[in-house]
Amino acid sequence: MEPQLNQEVIKAAAAHDGPIETDAVIVGAGPVGLFQVFELGLLEIKAHVIDSLAYPGGQCVELYPDKPIYDIPAVPVCTGQELTDNLLKQIEPFGATFHYGQEVTTVQRQDDGRFFVETSKGTRFITKTIFIAAGVGAFQPRTLKVDGLDAFLGTQLHYRVKNPADFAGKNLVIVGGGDSALDWALNFVQEGPNKAESVILVHRRDGFKAAPASVARMRTLCDAYEMQFVVGQVTGYDEKNGVLTGVKVTGADAVTRVVPLDMLLVFFGLSPKLGPIADWGLDIERKQLVVDTEKFSTNVPGIFAVGDINTYPGKKKLILSGFHECALAAFGAAPFIFPDKKIHLQYTTTSPKLHKVLGVESPVFD
Amino acid sequence: MEPQLNQEVIKAAAAHDGPIETDAVIVGAGPVGLFQVFELGLLEIKAHVIDSLAYPGGQCVELYPDKPIYDIPAVPVCTGQELTDNLLKQIEPFGATFHYGQEVTTVQRQDDGRFFVETSKGTRFITKTIFIAAGVGAFQPRTLKVDGLDAFLGTQLHYRVKNPADFAGKNLVIVGGGDSALDWALNFVQEGPNKAESVILVHRRDGFKAAPASVARMRTLCDAYEMQFVVGQVTGYDEKNGVLTGVKVTGADAVTRVVPLDMLLVFFGLSPKLGPIADWGLDIERKQLVVDTEKFSTNVPGIFAVGDINTYPGKKKLILSGFHECALAAFGAAPFIFPDKKIHLQYTTTSPKLHKVLGVESPVFD
Repeated sequence: MEPQLNQEVIKAAAAHDGPIETDAVIVGAGPVGLFQVFELGLLEIKAHVIDSLAYPGGQCVELYPDKPIYDIPAVPVCTGQELTDNLLKQIEPFGATFHYGQEVTTVQRQDDGRFFVETSKGTRFITKTIFIAAGVGAFQPRTLKVDGLDAFLGTQLHYRVKNPADFAGKNLVIVGGGDSALDWALNFVQEGPNKAESVILVHRRDGFKAAPASVARMRTLCDAYEMQFVVGQVTGYDEKNGVLTGVKVTGADAVTRVVPLDMLLVFFGLSPKLGPIADWGLDIERKQLVVDTEKFSTNVPGIFAVGDINTYPGKKKLILSGFHECALAAFGAAPFIFPDKKIHLQYTTTSPKLHKVLGVESPVFD
Repeated sequence: MEPQLNQEVIKAAAAHDGPIETDAVIVGAGPVGLFQVFELGLLEIKAHVIDSLAYPGGQCVELYPDKPIYDIPAVPVCTGQELTDNLLKQIEPFGATFHYGQEVTTVQRQDDGRFFVETSKGTRFITKTIFIAAGVGAFQPRTLKVDGLDAFLGTQLHYRVKNPADFAGKNLVIVGGGDSALDWALNFVQEGPNKAESVILVHRRDGFKAAPASVARMRTLCDAYEMQFVVGQVTGYDEKNGVLTGVKVTGADAVTRVVPLDMLLVFFGLSPKLGPIADWGLDIERKQLVVDTEKFSTNVPGIFAVGDINTYPGKKKLILSGFHECALAAFGAAPFIFPDKKIHLQYTTTSPKLHKVLGVESPVFD
């Protein structure tokens, strides 16, 4: 996939050659972030796109990839995945570069008026403009709320599996009832280089959101004593010399048992967080970024906010509103990028210049 | 076609039973007017739609039905006709009633706060709200600019053929070089109940925008002396006792000839005019209706303006902006229609209520 390739190239470049200089950074690769690429592209502005997820589509793909959407204008029905695919096709001519699986951690105004941007993966940019299309915020794993457990995050407590080999030969407790929990449980039980010493699945009830086939496979493995399933909630933990030795699981019968472990894996799904955006000095009103309706600019000149993350009088959190906001934000941003150029609205139907930008043939008119 | 049927039913009802009482009248059946039906429909508001053209699609269909449009979000490319067809499909569940081939001539506020609306065909409405989605204005025939000729409009000067029988057995001069001029010329030459006594086609040059097959047929008929073609422009006319007897046609050779006639038919195409909207007491700025960006309301409460006809700071005449404006205008209008109901934004992806309104099945969630 082209964006993945670009991502690797750019990561390498960033690591060795300092920050990427660009005209526009878009934070968020949901439908609105993707369409921001299009509207900037029509004005011949190239963009880099950053998303906390590993793929484009944002909450449309993360939360409801297969559920039909009916209110995209002129698209009587489509799924979140189809919407994303169509937008990716539409923005193809503009060659945006995508940086997935990372959040923006730093935004600083430089002396020359441009912004320094850095992500959680260390990708760095110097950019003239920023478009925040972060929707409901960066998707982050829902955490297990047990006082003191945070101390083991990254050593024995994990919300993601980055490297499966870290868990090979260990005694694992996996918490959750969705596809991630079941898939990883099955993965670590099966023969292979990453096979765990033992796997215990803990879920609050004997019912699962995961695919029925995975659940059936898990039950077969439990019957064969190759893994265990415990109904209950994690309510505490045991430690010895700073090492997590077990979790306390309270069952429906109100009895609490200690389940010993080497590693605790928790899969409670993802939940959106505004995250570091809250610290960039932008006007915020009830977790939304305040913008004007002329350019969809935040209070910081050069930083625009589009889609569900912004607020203004009359705001409705609709994808179609985000699309409109992208168009006006692109025109609002143009003076930061082309200070001496007067930008005129041109139409994709008739403008030979836009046809060139889009890479399509200009028809010959009578 | 369903809308056509409705139109006839409603016209009959209007003629016999007084005005149609409704919640919403939409002026304009272009893409934005059509999408206004959708956004009102989601809020369970039914609409009547009026357009000066005989079909939906507005300037998209009138001016560029087959030219590709590239900037409809999530639709990488479509023609004006395809855009219109998709929107018609999308609004099908909402059962709007269409009134084609007529312009709104009168808008008057009644004592009860509602509006009386009348069209050029005599269709009358009493409505709580009006949505002006009239784009560049109502399409009206381009006229022949010859001083004094207007006096014969509707008797001997015609820009449209309403009833072909009116021209049977007459000496006709038909002016123009497009499909309408050629098609009507050929029509009145051929044997049948509407055959004219004579047909003279006048066009400023010996070259045509009309379909080549029609032009070839015309030339064949001229060679057979069944009709005549004269290159030139109408620069004057002759009359006798208030009756138009001929037009003066000046050729490329600067010689002016008198061409005798009973009826003068002019087909110069359609051009948009703001028309009577200019007289409804609305704030107008450079031929655009001034609206706010919260509800897209005009200065007259209950009258909204969406799409190319409105103006506000940052306005770009983009179809995608019109779509956004429709959504906010629908929410802005709801209090006029349901004064006691609190309207919440719901999502087509998840709301069982909207699924019912859209006529689709609600999925069963885990």
